[in-house]
Amino acid sequence: MKNTELLGKRLVKALEAVVRVDGNRTDAVQLHEPRFGGNESKYLEECLQSTFVSSVGPFVNRFERDLTEYTGSAYAVALVNGTSALHLALLLAGVQAHDEVLVPALTFVATANAVTYCGATPHFVDSEGQTLGMDARVLRSYLASTTDQLDGRCINRRTGRVIRAMLPMHTFGHPCDVEALIAVANEFAICVVEDAAESLGSTVGGRHTGTFGKLGTLSFNGNKTITTGGGGAILCNELELYKRAKHLSTTAKIPHAWSFEHDEIGFNYRMPNLNAALGCAQLEQLPSFLAAKRELFVAYADALRDTPEVTLVSERQGCQSNYWLHTLLLAPEYAHKRDEILNECHQAGIMCRPAWQLIHRLPMYLTAPQAPLTQSESLAARIINIPSSPWLADKSKS
Amino acid sequence: MKNTELLGKRLVKALEAVVRVDGNRTDAVQLHEPRFGGNESKYLEECLQSTFVSSVGPFVNRFERDLTEYTGSAYAVALVNGTSALHLALLLAGVQAHDEVLVPALTFVATANAVTYCGATPHFVDSEGQTLGMDARVLRSYLASTTDQLDGRCINRRTGRVIRAMLPMHTFGHPCDVEALIAVANEFAICVVEDAAESLGSTVGGRHTGTFGKLGTLSFNGNKTITTGGGGAILCNELELYKRAKHLSTTAKIPHAWSFEHDEIGFNYRMPNLNAALGCAQLEQLPSFLAAKRELFVAYADALRDTPEVTLVSERQGCQSNYWLHTLLLAPEYAHKRDEILNECHQAGIMCRPAWQLIHRLPMYLTAPQAPLTQSESLAARIINIPSSPWLADKSKS
Repeated sequence: MKNTELLGKRLVKALEAVVRVDGNRTDAVQLHEPRFGGNESKYLEECLQSTFVSSVGPFVNRFERDLTEYTGSAYAVALVNGTSALHLALLLAGVQAHDEVLVPALTFVATANAVTYCGATPHFVDSEGQTLGMDARVLRSYLASTTDQLDGRCINRRTGRVIRAMLPMHTFGHPCDVEALIAVANEFAICVVEDAAESLGSTVGGRHTGTFGKLGTLSFNGNKTITTGGGGAILCNELELYKRAKHLSTTAKIPHAWSFEHDEIGFNYRMPNLNAALGCAQLEQLPSFLAAKRELFVAYADALRDTPEVTLVSERQGCQSNYWLHTLLLAPEYAHKRDEILNECHQAGIMCRPAWQLIHRLPMYLTAPQAPLTQSESLAARIINIPSSPWLADKSKS
Repeated sequence: MKNTELLGKRLVKALEAVVRVDGNRTDAVQLHEPRFGGNESKYLEECLQSTFVSSVGPFVNRFERDLTEYTGSAYAVALVNGTSALHLALLLAGVQAHDEVLVPALTFVATANAVTYCGATPHFVDSEGQTLGMDARVLRSYLASTTDQLDGRCINRRTGRVIRAMLPMHTFGHPCDVEALIAVANEFAICVVEDAAESLGSTVGGRHTGTFGKLGTLSFNGNKTITTGGGGAILCNELELYKRAKHLSTTAKIPHAWSFEHDEIGFNYRMPNLNAALGCAQLEQLPSFLAAKRELFVAYADALRDTPEVTLVSERQGCQSNYWLHTLLLAPEYAHKRDEILNECHQAGIMCRPAWQLIHRLPMYLTAPQAPLTQSESLAARIINIPSSPWLADKSKS
């Protein structure tokens, strides 16, 4: 049995062995930084020269096409950020005011906020230990005991509201069991919108995350695997949904040479061509980023071999994780050491972070409906994300 | 009396005399195009090198500081677009679900949509002929005859709802009579949010538009006087509003080295540093853009001297217009010629456009409350915007 007093120091040493290989780096090691080593400058310059920097332009078209090719989705719509993608995807899934949407308690706040923007209410459900995503088995029995089917809709027996959609999220890039979740959704007549904000490059059975649900969403925020500055996208396979996504994201304007007619409440949600130019260059480098992040996983796994108090979260069988944020899970008996470890890491200049505060504990969601959240509570207390920039494992670049 | 059959052809000839001075230009003359002749490439490259391309970064801070210096506003918050700026400004002005907000019928649809995003209802009011903006005199008598004061709030007698705010807009950059409108607002206990999306560089009595109301909003869309690709900003003079704008636009996250706590429903509305880098370079050139647009006004005024059927809209006394979109107003007896003229111009490769469809005529706003809109109807039928890119008057650059 190790001396638990020293866990923080031992962890710092293990992480340092990976992220400070040359012994000379003294600057803080960030959690996740972008790198612009490809055609970024070239494409930005091309974009300026074309004068098309705004919401139409060839880079937007190309970025959308590149995304469909990479993910295998029939359609992609580039948007201003991942939050707007979630909002729009939920509207397209038919979420209406006073509906409920099943959302993991363990996710970034934007997942729940997007539900609120629709006038609907998030209904928090539990996650499972292996994937950190929504637990299909637990969800099935929860829905069986708390909902009724009425006219082909799923009704929350306690609130009387329609549970219209579920929003599984691939936590830190690790694929959740989206196929099992879709099976549950189909049983209960619930629509699936897949929050793949963190999982560009992650697959389940060779199929890209975000392409299983009726709609999926991506994010290209500055801390993501690739970035457009700010940006997001909707993925979908139905032409009709694609057309509606384009229409609603461009203020619902009816195309015309000069006339300004709009036929419904729309949004200003299109990605500017400038940001898409950056995205095109970044997407070209995604395979190399992913390979480097896998190397980093191997390096961490090796360095943490003698630290049985933590588990390094790995992809489950049949899946590929993009390893967006490498994740340590403290054994339950060491959960109380989390903040001590975080402080130790920060003092050593290694930027680690805990999971988000569980959303049902945030003041604005205290009264939202919720399932038992035992596993989410346990996980949230034990998660530590560690530095995950792709080049950290690349000894030639450190 | 001129031959009205030929009005379209005579107008085309007058416009061509300005926009095709060298006689060789055969490409279509767009309504408004951006130009990147300053530090755009340099700042974008600096932004890439810094790796800060997302929602924090030195260019965002600098762009906000430059905006306060230019406009004289105490604070500026750079946001993802003008629509998000309007939405957030209305929330900060206290607009709540089921409120009404006074909005000109003659404006871009985003003005009304932003009200709808708050769960409130736009209440359409009339514009006046000289400024194309909300008519203060008509509004005062309308409010006097249709509203009651109750506990310091303005109540629409017909609907029973609170009229919480008004949203005057500076149409095509021409300043509306914002001081008279604020006087009316004060009389009736209504808050003023100023939609200066189109009027960066326009002043009233030497004071910048967007700084008169409790909050003001700007837009830097690709078709505006300066562009950030997509972008907008909130202007305000109260520290508390500024802090709330920053907080709500960054998902209401409580600042902390690693913890993710959010204390209310927030938004992902911050402008990325990449877009702010473009904005800094564009703002440096704003004075030269404005000077060139004034030259263009003079050239148009000269070319249209012998076309009494149209009036070129000019700034009213004591105001400076940025002349974002140069505007022709057909005399009422020629209103029926508008589409014929637009077709003639398009065929000649001169991209002109009419006013937006009046918002109360769009299907989603047909049932919204409205004042008599006689003047708006008349103006909308007679407005034609003509090419307004700043360099069109610069003979050395054509």
